[in-house]
Amino acid sequence: MKTEIAAPRTHLYEQVAEEVAQLIGQRILRAGDRVPSVRKLMAQKGVSRSTALQAFQLLEGRGLVEARPQSGYYVKPQREHLLPEPEHSHEPDTYDQIELEGTAAKVAEVIVSFRHHPEYAPFGVATPSPQILPNRALNRVLAATARQAGDAGNNYDFPPGHVELRRQIALRAPDAGYQLAMDEIVTTFGCMESLNLALRATCHPGDCVAIESPTYYGLLQALESLGLSAIEIPTHPQNGVDLLALEATLAKRKVAACLFATSYNNPLGSCMPEENRRALVQDILAPRGIPLIEDEIYADLYHGLARPKSCRAFDTEGLVLVCSSFSKCLAPGYRVGWIVPGRFGQRVQLLKFMNTLATATHPQAAIADFMKSGAFDHHMRSLRKRMREQVARVSEAVAEYFPAGTRVTRPAGGFVLWLELPGNANALRLHQRALAEGISIAPGPIFSAGQRYQNFIRLSCGYPWTTRLEHAMMTLGRLAQA
Amino acid sequence: MKTEIAAPRTHLYEQVAEEVAQLIGQRILRAGDRVPSVRKLMAQKGVSRSTALQAFQLLEGRGLVEARPQSGYYVKPQREHLLPEPEHSHEPDTYDQIELEGTAAKVAEVIVSFRHHPEYAPFGVATPSPQILPNRALNRVLAATARQAGDAGNNYDFPPGHVELRRQIALRAPDAGYQLAMDEIVTTFGCMESLNLALRATCHPGDCVAIESPTYYGLLQALESLGLSAIEIPTHPQNGVDLLALEATLAKRKVAACLFATSYNNPLGSCMPEENRRALVQDILAPRGIPLIEDEIYADLYHGLARPKSCRAFDTEGLVLVCSSFSKCLAPGYRVGWIVPGRFGQRVQLLKFMNTLATATHPQAAIADFMKSGAFDHHMRSLRKRMREQVARVSEAVAEYFPAGTRVTRPAGGFVLWLELPGNANALRLHQRALAEGISIAPGPIFSAGQRYQNFIRLSCGYPWTTRLEHAMMTLGRLAQA
Repeated sequence: MKTEIAAPRTHLYEQVAEEVAQLIGQRILRAGDRVPSVRKLMAQKGVSRSTALQAFQLLEGRGLVEARPQSGYYVKPQREHLLPEPEHSHEPDTYDQIELEGTAAKVAEVIVSFRHHPEYAPFGVATPSPQILPNRALNRVLAATARQAGDAGNNYDFPPGHVELRRQIALRAPDAGYQLAMDEIVTTFGCMESLNLALRATCHPGDCVAIESPTYYGLLQALESLGLSAIEIPTHPQNGVDLLALEATLAKRKVAACLFATSYNNPLGSCMPEENRRALVQDILAPRGIPLIEDEIYADLYHGLARPKSCRAFDTEGLVLVCSSFSKCLAPGYRVGWIVPGRFGQRVQLLKFMNTLATATHPQAAIADFMKSGAFDHHMRSLRKRMREQVARVSEAVAEYFPAGTRVTRPAGGFVLWLELPGNANALRLHQRALAEGISIAPGPIFSAGQRYQNFIRLSCGYPWTTRLEHAMMTLGRLAQA
Repeated sequence: MKTEIAAPRTHLYEQVAEEVAQLIGQRILRAGDRVPSVRKLMAQKGVSRSTALQAFQLLEGRGLVEARPQSGYYVKPQREHLLPEPEHSHEPDTYDQIELEGTAAKVAEVIVSFRHHPEYAPFGVATPSPQILPNRALNRVLAATARQAGDAGNNYDFPPGHVELRRQIALRAPDAGYQLAMDEIVTTFGCMESLNLALRATCHPGDCVAIESPTYYGLLQALESLGLSAIEIPTHPQNGVDLLALEATLAKRKVAACLFATSYNNPLGSCMPEENRRALVQDILAPRGIPLIEDEIYADLYHGLARPKSCRAFDTEGLVLVCSSFSKCLAPGYRVGWIVPGRFGQRVQLLKFMNTLATATHPQAAIADFMKSGAFDHHMRSLRKRMREQVARVSEAVAEYFPAGTRVTRPAGGFVLWLELPGNANALRLHQRALAEGISIAPGPIFSAGQRYQNFIRLSCGYPWTTRLEHAMMTLGRLAQA
């Protein structure tokens, strides 16, 4: 006689895992949330350490959570919430004259809306929330440096700029895969000034610059204001600039410089693979003597374990001009950035002098002290985690509230998402309607000289997730349906 | 019987006056020195108040001293030490392409020499000595604003910039003869950025700009870097731009903008009379629709009783763009300036955004607080006196130590002197030889796109007079002989 088959026996660790899985399924725990620690689970469920660990391994195997070194387990974005990414962009487009009346005027209008961001749900301007920056600590450092500065803080700090700040920047270059002497750095009033200097050092009015498509609107404005024309190169949401399309373009047309944000570009969030960087610098640009202006402003905000290498790591000709700043990670209001201008060093120093004479002394000194003390690296470690979590939250809300057919990027760094809305969505109209509901977003057409991307929007994830933001995303999703 | 005629009777006040006159004659008291006060004279000589006053009136009548309101009597520059001024400059010169390899490269070289100024006798760079700026007081204000700022100090302060700073600037516009709303001001990273924005708002690459001759070398560099050409208009050491020459130029050639430092321009120190300002703005520029970029950076450093009016006071068309900063009077290292862009307001705001995004928050806040407290106006009153004295000292040393035939300007404001050396003097060579002796000067050719002014030099009088400076002037005079 056969014994009745018992209900399949469930191991204790499976039960524990199932309880956590239900929390995730019910969206009580969400993508980016930390799940209770092993220790907490042991106490909560009265299980052994090995049971708790087995439960996590099971959850990890099912793709529900992921381990982060020295931090614990976190809820992964769920497959049903992983929307497809936008498609690879269009064929190269040339804009011989970037018209202020076109893109830039639209941009200006949108920027005005960003100014109000304390009152708006802040998905518009790509800036980190003041809440997640060490403002008070940094301001205390500034106060201390100001008190101690004596006369020095009030003198011109002529280019190349603050000695200790340049030393601190040089010390961190190996993270980006290259060695740097402090004399190779020129400090600036932020990445916008760095980009302006780089463009002015490498191009003359009327020249054509190859850029990513879509690209940061501020860059389009800078090109316009310098009388430069642009050629927009198709850019992949994961791999960045399409090198074949770039080569085809270069074969047809004289390009004075390339300007690419190779690591987590704004708005796509793409990150060029290392092999592509090498090929870009050594096989494509060096033989043609074309400079690469590399916008690295988001590069330190990697979500993974290591910073992507800079293209400068592959440069033997001094043709790469690296531009960056502290605006996205530490101190937007301090306006301190830098440029590593390669063989254009002398010209860049002179242009810096011509543009703004010198970078302000005290803000540079404060940031240098903050870096020297170790506080900066400590802050960056926690900021990267936060940014990853915030991106996951917004991403999940898009999946939950936006119309079917919406596509969204999956950036491996930075803090912006690029959404393709289905059908005939009109991003500029959505921007207006969202503003009316107290929500700021950045409409797609401002990211292209030709006002492409009519049905795209960029969402900044610079702010910690709150119920208010969740409601705003709900509203935005509803508006996007219409 | 006639009584013997007594030796002509000398009044007591005449004796007292004579004693002071001897001190001046022996150069123990020098131009710009304060002579002992009425009270001191009463005590020193045991004379009555009215005797002391009579003595001063006598000295004043003889042109030895001058009264300054609420301050006392000062030694006047003596006739024998008043060198002739340089002649009115040459015919208009056009430079269709300002060559980096020419002027700008020379300038770069000279600027490098300015950087070492702590070790050099500082007649080179036109910056006030840190000793005469309220660095510690201002740094304390910065420290306080930084400590109190909370999150605000670290946010972007998007154009038009800091509200309280703009209010403080607007409050002082009536001193320059006009009313200003704070919304008409855009804050910048100093006057160089203001001038860049003004040029970019009014000109396109290839356009021609009318400038003074000689003119500030930084301006020539800015024009060069923007691909603009220059036409140098003859400029009078006292009255500024020659309006007849300007009109003749405008009749022959299309000019996109004029860029003049109407009040104490650098290096001439000339100040345009009010009637010329009116004629320039209303009769010459307005009918032609030509914008005037007015560099006012030295305007607040008047040596007389009142600030010269800005050309903006005569502007009914919004064609005047006023550019200024705090770099010459308060805080070179803070890098805070502003522009009043008239009808070009929207374009200037956009260009500011494109160039450097926003002006740094804390330095603006600190200067605004400093102004609000009254400390700024108090400081300016004493700074103006000091600058006048320092200019008189250097001027007198030129008369004493420089070769016969040297000519020198007599500026009514600012703190630079422009010297014409006799014969075949070579200013660039003098600059090199002076550096070798530890003296920094600015050679004339860098003040012209065509490297005119081969035998001119500019001396900055930004530092308090010391024996060291006197020795440096002695050495410089000797080098100029050779």
